[in-house]
Amino acid sequence: MIILGIDPGYAITGYGIVELKGNRIRPLVCGVLRTAAKTPFPERLLRISDGLTELISTYNPDCMAVEELFFARNTTTAIGTAQARGVAVLVGAKAGIPVFEYTPVQVKSAVVGYGKADKNQVQEMVKRLLNLAAVPKPDDAADALALAICHAHTGNRANFLAVGGYQ
Amino acid sequence: MIILGIDPGYAITGYGIVELKGNRIRPLVCGVLRTAAKTPFPERLLRISDGLTELISTYNPDCMAVEELFFARNTTTAIGTAQARGVAVLVGAKAGIPVFEYTPVQVKSAVVGYGKADKNQVQEMVKRLLNLAAVPKPDDAADALALAICHAHTGNRANFLAVGGYQ
Repeated sequence: MIILGIDPGYAITGYGIVELKGNRIRPLVCGVLRTAAKTPFPERLLRISDGLTELISTYNPDCMAVEELFFARNTTTAIGTAQARGVAVLVGAKAGIPVFEYTPVQVKSAVVGYGKADKNQVQEMVKRLLNLAAVPKPDDAADALALAICHAHTGNRANFLAVGGYQ
Repeated sequence: MIILGIDPGYAITGYGIVELKGNRIRPLVCGVLRTAAKTPFPERLLRISDGLTELISTYNPDCMAVEELFFARNTTTAIGTAQARGVAVLVGAKAGIPVFEYTPVQVKSAVVGYGKADKNQVQEMVKRLLNLAAVPKPDDAADALALAICHAHTGNRANFLAVGGYQ
């Protein structure tokens, strides 16, 4: 099973793709899609859509895992990030692959075994679990890999967005 | 000039298309795209994307006007609405048409001439300005027409999303 993890954002969208065979997880690729602040917002969304569509067409993942959004405060950034997430989820739907979502606590629990783990612990475990020479950079790429690993470890059908809270 | 107004939402997305010739505005179509609560969220976004894409292909608008999102509280609904808006803006970008955004105050000012007008006043003016027999229903369709009228009246380049706040 090939899993595409996505950490969505309109300035930086992280992606990480892993292959799960039995209990073995191996990294296929990770990186980020960046869009410039001076680029019109609709164009930024288009680039994210095109970039993710190309990734899916290249790596043919069986599913997508994205982080559940929560914002302590309502800000322009929060609304922009949610719009980018909508685009990422749409790309998954267009490709016909199921989209799963996980909270940060779920990701930390699945990757580190401790829901209150800090960012460094998560990144260190991503490196170890995938036998990487170094922690993937930037953080958004490492976070996307963590989401993919989380799905590989839990494969939790309860997080299928079908059952999500958008009523 | 043909203007597509959109009031985005994941449960109901309103649309209204008007044609501006000189100073005359005439309605072409209005309505809503509905998605069922039991439909998986990614599928809901896909239906919104497909529905808006079909509208654009049928009516060939020159531009899109959407409401600027603001939420007093951070809720699941707010994040879902923002994701639907991202999909709507993406559809505009894919079609290669410019996307403009307006605040509710701008819409009220442009349609009623008073930024604190209430919903009924806006709907009554939409009916009058477009020579309709009745106020368009549901509200989301009327709101979308109000956005299109707002753009027709102001054509405010300052609201082009290129200049928006997503830095």
